[in-house]
Amino acid sequence: MKHLIHTLNKAFDHRVRLGVMAVLLANESVSFNDLKEALDLTDGNLASHVAALEKAGYVLVSKQFIGKKPNTTYNATAEGKTAFQQHLEALEKLLRP
Amino acid sequence: MKHLIHTLNKAFDHRVRLGVMAVLLANESVSFNDLKEALDLTDGNLASHVAALEKAGYVLVSKQFIGKKPNTTYNATAEGKTAFQQHLEALEKLLRP
Repeated sequence: MKHLIHTLNKAFDHRVRLGVMAVLLANESVSFNDLKEALDLTDGNLASHVAALEKAGYVLVSKQFIGKKPNTTYNATAEGKTAFQQHLEALEKLLRP
Repeated sequence: MKHLIHTLNKAFDHRVRLGVMAVLLANESVSFNDLKEALDLTDGNLASHVAALEKAGYVLVSKQFIGKKPNTTYNATAEGKTAFQQHLEALEKLLRP
Protein backbone atom coordinates (compact mmCIF):
# COMPACT_ATOMS: atom_id res chain seq x y z
CA MET A 1 0.00 0.00 0.00
CA LYS A 2 1.21 3.48 -0.82
CA HIS A 3 2.08 5.68 2.15
CA LEU A 4 -0.11 8.71 2.80
CA ILE A 5 2.66 11.12 1.75
CA HIS A 6 2.07 10.02 -1.84
CA THR A 7 -1.48 11.38 -1.64
CA LEU A 8 -0.04 14.86 -0.95
CA ASN A 9 0.02 17.04 -4.04
CA LYS A 10 3.49 17.98 -5.34
CA ALA A 11 2.11 21.25 -6.67
CA PHE A 12 1.47 22.39 -3.09
CA ASP A 13 4.88 21.36 -1.69
CA HIS A 14 5.87 24.89 -0.75
CA ARG A 15 4.58 27.30 1.86
CA VAL A 16 4.14 30.12 -0.69
CA ARG A 17 1.80 27.92 -2.75
CA LEU A 18 -0.18 26.97 0.35
CA GLY A 19 -0.53 30.67 1.11
CA VAL A 20 -1.59 31.58 -2.44
CA MET A 21 -4.25 28.87 -2.51
CA ALA A 22 -5.51 29.77 0.98
CA VAL A 23 -5.96 33.41 -0.11
CA LEU A 24 -7.60 32.45 -3.42
CA LEU A 25 -10.06 30.12 -1.72
CA ALA A 26 -11.08 32.85 0.70
CA ASN A 27 -11.33 35.53 -2.05
CA GLU A 28 -12.88 35.11 -5.49
CA SER A 29 -10.41 37.28 -7.40
CA VAL A 30 -7.17 38.86 -6.15
CA SER A 31 -4.75 41.22 -7.90
CA PHE A 32 -1.02 40.54 -8.04
CA ASN A 33 -0.28 43.46 -5.74
CA ASP A 34 -2.91 42.50 -3.18
CA LEU A 35 -1.67 38.92 -3.17
CA LYS A 36 1.92 40.08 -2.80
CA GLU A 37 1.02 42.33 0.11
CA ALA A 38 -1.26 39.78 1.78
CA LEU A 39 1.50 37.18 1.73
CA ASP A 40 4.36 39.63 2.27
CA LEU A 41 6.40 38.38 -0.67
CA THR A 42 8.72 39.80 -3.31
CA ASP A 43 7.49 40.06 -6.93
CA GLY A 44 9.79 37.32 -8.17
CA ASN A 45 8.98 34.86 -5.41
CA LEU A 46 5.23 35.25 -5.86
CA ALA A 47 5.44 35.20 -9.69
CA SER A 48 7.37 31.93 -9.85
CA HIS A 49 5.02 30.08 -7.51
CA VAL A 50 1.88 31.45 -9.16
CA ALA A 51 3.30 30.38 -12.54
CA ALA A 52 3.70 26.83 -11.22
CA LEU A 53 0.11 26.82 -9.96
CA GLU A 54 -1.10 28.21 -13.30
CA LYS A 55 0.80 25.49 -15.17
CA ALA A 56 -0.87 22.86 -12.98
CA GLY A 57 -4.25 24.32 -13.96
CA TYR A 58 -5.05 25.39 -10.39
CA VAL A 59 -4.91 29.16 -10.86
CA LEU A 60 -6.33 31.26 -13.67
CA VAL A 61 -4.42 34.43 -14.58
CA SER A 62 -6.33 37.35 -16.13
CA LYS A 63 -4.49 40.34 -17.58
CA GLN A 64 -6.44 43.55 -18.09
CA PHE A 65 -5.83 47.25 -18.20
CA ILE A 66 -7.24 49.82 -15.82
CA GLY A 67 -6.82 52.93 -17.94
CA LYS A 68 -3.22 52.53 -19.13
CA LYS A 69 -2.10 50.51 -16.12
CA PRO A 70 -1.86 46.75 -16.47
CA ASN A 71 -3.78 44.84 -13.83
CA THR A 72 -3.24 41.13 -13.31
CA THR A 73 -5.73 39.17 -11.25
CA TYR A 74 -5.80 35.59 -10.06
CA ASN A 75 -8.59 33.13 -9.38
CA ALA A 76 -8.49 29.56 -8.17
CA THR A 77 -9.96 27.23 -10.82
CA ALA A 78 -12.58 24.62 -9.87
CA GLU A 79 -9.87 21.99 -10.33
CA GLY A 80 -7.54 23.96 -8.06
CA LYS A 81 -10.16 24.25 -5.33
CA THR A 82 -10.82 20.51 -5.40
CA ALA A 83 -7.12 19.62 -5.50
CA PHE A 84 -6.32 21.94 -2.59
CA GLN A 85 -9.18 20.55 -0.52
CA GLN A 86 -7.91 17.02 -1.17
CA HIS A 87 -4.39 18.13 -0.22
CA LEU A 88 -5.65 19.55 3.10
CA GLU A 89 -7.50 16.33 3.85
CA ALA A 90 -4.38 14.28 3.08
CA LEU A 91 -2.28 16.57 5.30
CA GLU A 92 -4.70 16.14 8.16
CA LYS A 93 -4.72 12.36 7.80
CA LEU A 94 -0.93 12.30 7.76
CA LEU A 95 -0.30 14.77 10.55
CA ARG A 96 -3.23 14.23 12.90
CA PRO A 97 -3.96 10.53 12.53
CA MET B 1 2.74 42.15 10.06
CA LYS B 2 4.27 39.06 8.57
CA HIS B 3 1.87 36.66 6.93
CA LEU B 4 1.38 33.26 8.54
CA ILE B 5 3.21 31.50 5.71
CA HIS B 6 6.44 32.97 7.08
CA THR B 7 5.91 31.02 10.31
CA LEU B 8 6.02 27.77 8.32
CA ASN B 9 9.39 26.06 8.52
CA LYS B 10 11.33 25.85 5.24
CA ALA B 11 12.94 22.62 6.38
CA PHE B 12 9.53 20.92 6.22
CA ASP B 13 8.52 22.29 2.80
CA HIS B 14 8.33 18.87 1.19
CA ARG B 15 5.97 15.95 1.65
CA VAL B 16 8.84 13.48 2.15
CA ARG B 17 10.12 15.53 5.10
CA LEU B 18 6.64 15.73 6.61
CA GLY B 19 6.45 11.94 6.32
CA VAL B 20 9.88 11.37 7.87
CA MET B 21 9.08 13.61 10.84
CA ALA B 22 5.64 12.06 11.33
CA VAL B 23 7.21 8.58 11.48
CA LEU B 24 10.03 9.70 13.79
CA LEU B 25 7.63 11.37 16.20
CA ALA B 26 5.55 8.20 16.42
CA ASN B 27 8.61 5.92 16.78
CA GLU B 28 11.66 6.55 18.95
CA SER B 29 14.25 5.07 16.59
CA VAL B 30 13.77 3.86 13.01
CA SER B 31 16.23 2.18 10.63
CA PHE B 32 16.86 3.46 7.11
CA ASN B 33 15.18 0.42 5.59
CA ASP B 34 12.12 0.57 7.84
CA LEU B 35 11.74 4.28 7.11
CA LYS B 36 12.13 3.67 3.39
CA GLU B 37 9.50 0.93 3.43
CA ALA B 38 7.13 2.82 5.71
CA LEU B 39 7.18 5.81 3.37
CA ASP B 40 7.50 3.80 0.15
CA LEU B 41 10.49 5.76 -1.15
CA THR B 42 13.64 5.09 -3.12
CA ASP B 43 17.01 5.12 -1.33
CA GLY B 44 18.13 8.33 -2.99
CA ASN B 45 14.95 10.23 -2.34
CA LEU B 46 14.88 9.32 1.34
CA ALA B 47 18.61 9.92 1.82
CA SER B 48 18.55 13.45 0.40
CA HIS B 49 15.62 14.58 2.52
CA VAL B 50 16.96 12.95 5.69
CA ALA B 51 20.30 14.68 5.05
CA ALA B 52 18.51 18.05 4.89
CA LEU B 53 16.71 17.32 8.18
CA GLU B 54 20.01 16.23 9.76
CA LYS B 55 21.69 19.43 8.60
CA ALA B 56 18.87 21.44 10.19
CA GLY B 57 19.53 19.62 13.47
CA TYR B 58 16.11 17.96 13.46
CA VAL B 59 17.18 14.35 12.91
CA LEU B 60 20.03 12.45 14.54
CA VAL B 61 21.71 9.78 12.40
CA SER B 62 23.40 6.83 14.15
CA LYS B 63 25.58 4.40 12.21
CA GLN B 64 26.28 1.03 13.80
CA PHE B 65 27.08 -2.49 12.73
CA ILE B 66 24.93 -5.55 13.34
CA GLY B 67 27.57 -8.26 12.87
CA LYS B 68 29.22 -7.14 9.66
CA LYS B 69 26.15 -5.37 8.29
CA PRO B 70 25.95 -1.60 8.61
CA ASN B 71 22.77 -0.40 10.27
CA THR B 72 21.74 3.24 10.13
CA THR B 73 19.03 4.48 12.46
CA TYR B 74 17.28 7.82 12.79
CA ASN B 75 15.79 9.69 15.71
CA ALA B 76 14.06 13.03 15.88
CA THR B 77 16.04 15.44 18.08
CA ALA B 78 14.29 17.45 20.82
CA GLU B 79 14.75 20.51 18.61
CA GLY B 80 13.22 18.63 15.69
CA LYS B 81 10.19 17.57 17.71
CA THR B 82 9.56 21.14 18.86
CA ALA B 83 10.09 22.61 15.38
CA PHE B 84 7.76 20.07 13.78
CA GLN B 85 5.08 20.70 16.39
CA GLN B 86 5.34 24.45 15.72
CA HIS B 87 5.14 23.79 11.99
CA LEU B 88 1.93 21.75 12.44
CA GLU B 89 0.40 24.50 14.55
CA ALA B 90 1.31 27.10 11.91
CA LEU B 91 -0.16 24.89 9.16
CA GLU B 92 -3.40 24.55 11.07
CA LYS B 93 -3.65 28.29 11.65
CA LEU B 94 -3.03 28.97 7.97
CA LEU B 95 -5.24 26.28 6.53
CA ARG B 96 -8.08 26.04 9.05
CA PRO B 97 -8.41 29.61 10.31
